Amino acid sequence: MKGRDWLLKLFIFGIFCLLWAGASQAGPRVSENTEACLGCHTSVTPGIVSDWRRSVHSRVSPGEGLKKGPKTRKISASNIPDKLVETVVGCAECHTLNPGKHKDSFDHNGFKVHVVVTPENCSICHPTEAKQYGKNIMSHAHGNLKNNPLYRQLADSINGVQSFHKGRTILKPPDPETQYDSCFYCHGTEVKVRGFKARDTDMGRMEFPVLSGWPNQGVGRINPDGSKGSCAACHTRHQFSMEMARKPYTCSECHKGPDVPAYAVYQVSKHGNLYSSLGKEWDFQAVPWTVGKDFSAPTCAACHVSLVVNEAGNVVAERTHQMNDRLPWRIFGLIYAHPRPKSPDTTIIKNKAGLPLPTELTGEPVSEYLIDAKEQEKRRAAMQNICLSCHSDGWVQGQFARMENTIKTTNEMTRAATEILLRAWKIGAAKGPAQNDSPFNEAIEKKWVEQWLFYANSTRFASAMAGADYGVFANGRWYMSKNLQEMVEWLKEKTPKKPAAKSKEIGKK
Amino acid sequence: MKGRDWLLKLFIFGIFCLLWAGASQAGPRVSENTEACLGCHTSVTPGIVSDWRRSVHSRVSPGEGLKKGPKTRKISASNIPDKLVETVVGCAECHTLNPGKHKDSFDHNGFKVHVVVTPENCSICHPTEAKQYGKNIMSHAHGNLKNNPLYRQLADSINGVQSFHKGRTILKPPDPETQYDSCFYCHGTEVKVRGFKARDTDMGRMEFPVLSGWPNQGVGRINPDGSKGSCAACHTRHQFSMEMARKPYTCSECHKGPDVPAYAVYQVSKHGNLYSSLGKEWDFQAVPWTVGKDFSAPTCAACHVSLVVNEAGNVVAERTHQMNDRLPWRIFGLIYAHPRPKSPDTTIIKNKAGLPLPTELTGEPVSEYLIDAKEQEKRRAAMQNICLSCHSDGWVQGQFARMENTIKTTNEMTRAATEILLRAWKIGAAKGPAQNDSPFNEAIEKKWVEQWLFYANSTRFASAMAGADYGVFANGRWYMSKNLQEMVEWLKEKTPKKPAAKSKEIGKK
Amino acid sequence: MKGRDWLLKLFIFGIFCLLWAGASQAGPRVSENTEACLGCHTSVTPGIVSDWRRSVHSRVSPGEGLKKGPKTRKISASNIPDKLVETVVGCAECHTLNPGKHKDSFDHNGFKVHVVVTPENCSICHPTEAKQYGKNIMSHAHGNLKNNPLYRQLADSINGVQSFHKGRTILKPPDPETQYDSCFYCHGTEVKVRGFKARDTDMGRMEFPVLSGWPNQGVGRINPDGSKGSCAACHTRHQFSMEMARKPYTCSECHKGPDVPAYAVYQVSKHGNLYSSLGKEWDFQAVPWTVGKDFSAPTCAACHVSLVVNEAGNVVAERTHQMNDRLPWRIFGLIYAHPRPKSPDTTIIKNKAGLPLPTELTGEPVSEYLIDAKEQEKRRAAMQNICLSCHSDGWVQGQFARMENTIKTTNEMTRAATEILLRAWKIGAAKGPAQNDSPFNEAIEKKWVEQWLFYANSTRFASAMAGADYGVFANGRWYMSKNLQEMVEWLKEKTPKKPAAKSKEIGKK
Repeated sequence: MKGRDWLLKLFIFGIFCLLWAGASQAGPRVSENTEACLGCHTSVTPGIVSDWRRSVHSRVSPGEGLKKGPKTRKISASNIPDKLVETVVGCAECHTLNPGKHKDSFDHNGFKVHVVVTPENCSICHPTEAKQYGKNIMSHAHGNLKNNPLYRQLADSINGVQSFHKGRTILKPPDPETQYDSCFYCHGTEVKVRGFKARDTDMGRMEFPVLSGWPNQGVGRINPDGSKGSCAACHTRHQFSMEMARKPYTCSECHKGPDVPAYAVYQVSKHGNLYSSLGKEWDFQAVPWTVGKDFSAPTCAACHVSLVVNEAGNVVAERTHQMNDRLPWRIFGLIYAHPRPKSPDTTIIKNKAGLPLPTELTGEPVSEYLIDAKEQEKRRAAMQNICLSCHSDGWVQGQFARMENTIKTTNEMTRAATEILLRAWKIGAAKGPAQNDSPFNEAIEKKWVEQWLFYANSTRFASAMAGADYGVFANGRWYMSKNLQEMVEWLKEKTPKKPAAKSKEIGKK
Repeated sequence: MKGRDWLLKLFIFGIFCLLWAGASQAGPRVSENTEACLGCHTSVTPGIVSDWRRSVHSRVSPGEGLKKGPKTRKISASNIPDKLVETVVGCAECHTLNPGKHKDSFDHNGFKVHVVVTPENCSICHPTEAKQYGKNIMSHAHGNLKNNPLYRQLADSINGVQSFHKGRTILKPPDPETQYDSCFYCHGTEVKVRGFKARDTDMGRMEFPVLSGWPNQGVGRINPDGSKGSCAACHTRHQFSMEMARKPYTCSECHKGPDVPAYAVYQVSKHGNLYSSLGKEWDFQAVPWTVGKDFSAPTCAACHVSLVVNEAGNVVAERTHQMNDRLPWRIFGLIYAHPRPKSPDTTIIKNKAGLPLPTELTGEPVSEYLIDAKEQEKRRAAMQNICLSCHSDGWVQGQFARMENTIKTTNEMTRAATEILLRAWKIGAAKGPAQNDSPFNEAIEKKWVEQWLFYANSTRFASAMAGADYGVFANGRWYMSKNLQEMVEWLKEKTPKKPAAKSKEIGKK
Repeated sequence: MKGRDWLLKLFIFGIFCLLWAGASQAGPRVSENTEACLGCHTSVTPGIVSDWRRSVHSRVSPGEGLKKGPKTRKISASNIPDKLVETVVGCAECHTLNPGKHKDSFDHNGFKVHVVVTPENCSICHPTEAKQYGKNIMSHAHGNLKNNPLYRQLADSINGVQSFHKGRTILKPPDPETQYDSCFYCHGTEVKVRGFKARDTDMGRMEFPVLSGWPNQGVGRINPDGSKGSCAACHTRHQFSMEMARKPYTCSECHKGPDVPAYAVYQVSKHGNLYSSLGKEWDFQAVPWTVGKDFSAPTCAACHVSLVVNEAGNVVAERTHQMNDRLPWRIFGLIYAHPRPKSPDTTIIKNKAGLPLPTELTGEPVSEYLIDAKEQEKRRAAMQNICLSCHSDGWVQGQFARMENTIKTTNEMTRAATEILLRAWKIGAAKGPAQNDSPFNEAIEKKWVEQWLFYANSTRFASAMAGADYGVFANGRWYMSKNLQEMVEWLKEKTPKKPAAKSKEIGKK
């Protein structure tokens, strides 16, 4: 009978464990204000309420978060306003913060609610992340595009509507809706309150703000409280799932196209293959993230953002939201690859020729605005330390030598294209800035843009992340070489032939 | 002892539940006819038999299906022929229906079997779906292409074989195999019985029909029983998995390429990111489909097809197989975006110029064949009702304003390209319909086609589904603007210069 | 009381089962040498150690592997050196094999260790696979590219750096790093030992080999032991997961781009849709692989590599690592599709014109180097046998008729493009081999290359694997037809007009 008793006790203990687990699921309480929100929104916008119920925000209060150890905690604040400590992070906790600063704040069932939750709101609990992100070039993506006259010319030549009139095209600058829908979709719009408008709802007549530049979750969004960026760009509302931010699809929302094919390259890399084939068994929630145990190959986040440790608990990479602090080079978006800018605000940059560019048209970097070789080496070493978790030193050195060689050769191929264009401008075959014309609006100029914006970039990403075909036939070296030949053939046709030579040529034929 | 007894009773009850569940898995019986099929086909075509064993069809009889409630049932018939009620839906139940109508019916081991199962066969249990699908433009995809002389010219210029002879190309119309392999692969072939042929099989000599246009599962297939379409296009044989039809890969079979990049856009949208990152935990089998509970972000099916409810059980969207009934606009496949056609048979449409097109070459819609503003508003509201499950009214209005602005601007960019082409035809730089030539066969005409068929379409899909780069650098506005510049530069070169002006120009150089 | 006893006995039995399972997990022992490796590398390169711990290699000794039945065993050796039989396959077992032959072998903590594990090393246990792979054209991918002067010209024209000088471009041959980073990334580099170099490590100062062409896992890598290939190209180190090799992402590392879009086509095929939608429930580890039971639709491996059986245990397809032995045609990479070469070393091929090509420039195959119709039929039948597991004979015949028709028509479209180029060379509009110039370096020549290398290939893959849009608008027939029109228009402009005719033409305008 004794053995049997032991078994029954085990059984009973199991039942208690389950009951206890069930009871403790109740967890910390939801604030009264959030309960009021949920009262209506559970039926009005059921999808986002369900999303939130799945989030850590709905289950853990900041007070509990604060108790975690330095490596496992997700909150970076050392203290949090009293009224926010005990309850979970619900609707009201975020959407009623700082009503004074929020121009989009409005009276809603007795609350001062704002629509647009901002990095400044999130920084109550996550100040380190917000601060680091502010040093990230992405946080300035709106202004860096809008306030750089050269980039704006590029954007206008793409997004403006052209009409055909008497044998030529006329460009009308893009309307605001088109701008929100194109470049600023990722770069971030400026969200402004245009007024308030009442409308009938299931809950009666109510007034809401009318926003321009909305919806938007771009990385450099200008918010109604004056802050920059949107945490929801990567930490998708309202589940704010770490799993999602760590999966490569999040980055692919903005980084997949021919101008920045990071995700496309990742997909065909060995790392991407490992993720796609075996990632279903990895743990994307663990904090810190243990290489080998939680995941077998990096996603974007592992190399660029996450706190990564090894099984002994040693830090392989610190968590950072300044995504460039392991990146020595800026390999996309500009005419030439170059050391990364010092300031996230790139509108301050001017080259010797007076253009708002980090390099001369020859490719020479404008050093005063860019990080120096020592800082590059520091960042390179930080990145390589991650590689070394799985790869030998010889492997890693070989990989980086290849990538830096590719930066050099792609810059050279861009330089050849640039010289062809400069020549075209000189002989009047096309009109450039010296002729008071956009350098981006004619067919030959657009070929030049593709040389660096698509093909050189793609080749560099392929090299950096080892997704070879994007460096050869998929928008890589094949296209650089073909594009250059098309440009030079076009130039040859446009170059006036010497009259004598010409008549002879005709005679010969 | 009492407590212990209670536990043991619980244990025993559990065991009984398991036994009962096991016993009830036996479920309804398989018909004798289907048993006969399975007798051989389990070894002859084991893959599809296994597939079918995984299907709901193999486990649930129509009789059981009929007993389900109005929201959970999948059968739309109110009554079903007696002989089909009690047994599960097996091989014989579908492949021996209506033998009289099926020209592909043949004697096979004593049964009148047909190869091609059709929407008319499926409509025995699913008549509402078959009827709705018949109103869908997809159900007419074969004839809409084949019987529109303009589209056929386009298809022939793509699929025909060209040879080079004395400095010019000669186009041979495409052979039938090429047609089955290209446009009609998705649009649907006409499946015809060319005869019957005996051959030796593992079971002895047997006679089988010889079909042309086979294999095919295109959406507008013309079937040997005279019906149109193939349910298997989306409900893949022989598992007929609802999970599969609801996942975006099914739509991507036809809707991924540059002419209709719906899936490509979805992938980089926030919705697509949510699906890719978190979808593994969603329930793709639940009927009805509860937003928030079963899924956190829409797949194609959620917005375009499925019965969607909220957690309170209220209907967010009715199930529909007329996929266009939430779509105010037709944004792809034609020169200009326009209100959707009234009839799924688009061969009836003629514009004022006599062309089989829903707009003039200026973009003006041919209203009599198209839905009116009121119907557009009804469809727009039906779609927006789905958005509102997760998004505020302001968000949704902003999103739709943007999309409708993009329809306008992309039409304008198409118009500029069209005017360049009309001018080229006029000055004799190319030959169009007025010169008795195809408008699709010359290089400049193909550039014009790409303006609307690829770039304007891609931009609209990007706007409609918020996958920004497909509206900019990935076949979007970048290409619209570049293509137009290339067209206008080409036109400039082809335009005869006034003799006087020309000699002066030469003199100047 | 009796019933209760029975239940308790069941419970106790279950507990014992668990304990026994736990105990047996200990499995065969790790060798002392491998223990020594793990001593440091668990902390030095934790990622790959974790990977290895998840591998079958870390849990099963070759001795145990040998005991398995003929269909379930993964080892093809009939006997294995004694010292390797009893311990699992760990670091030392592979990285210290054949030190005499391995030029990359070096003294490392008392062991003769080599960096680059090769097919010859793997063949100790897997000799059949290594031998079959050696007959595979992939195993010769390095030499087939490097030692074919025509292909090398193509590669150089793509990868070399061009500069612009006095109105024309000058091509500098590609540097070694660029070659490792582009074509040879997939084709395989030649890995050579350039010397040895000491450096400080966490474990003190140590000497390591310095390798050129490293890292690389290309399919035709030339290894420091003289062998060819890298098993890790598909069987990714150090988990060597069969699941991974069977998933299509592995093949996509090299076979996704426009030159060989196999994976892209698969993704939008019905097979790919089945995999993406339902594959999460398939068993990718089972050996043999049972169609219907383990998987419902083929991945690349199912048709091209794996041992596939049906539920009755009959072999549907034998395992092969000579991936071409079910392939009658070679459909990519060359100017024309043609019967597959007999020898994996294609450098031996010469056509009648003396070019190292398997066809003439007219498309006529150079039969002596290619398999004959009988061998083609044998391979076609082997492939069709796999199809027949799920499809009827009529379906399969229809599918293959379509594909072989597409081979014919795409060859014709390539021929037209070739004739245009030959004419251009003849009239001096471009410079070809007869003018002592590369046939790949000018703009018109690059258009010709795209006709076959991208568009004809894509069309054939789309036809072979039923991913229709890659045969039409996604790099398919649309582009073949457009490219040809652009080529012929270009030729027309370059063709000298007869002076008389010309003046008349001007007069007419």
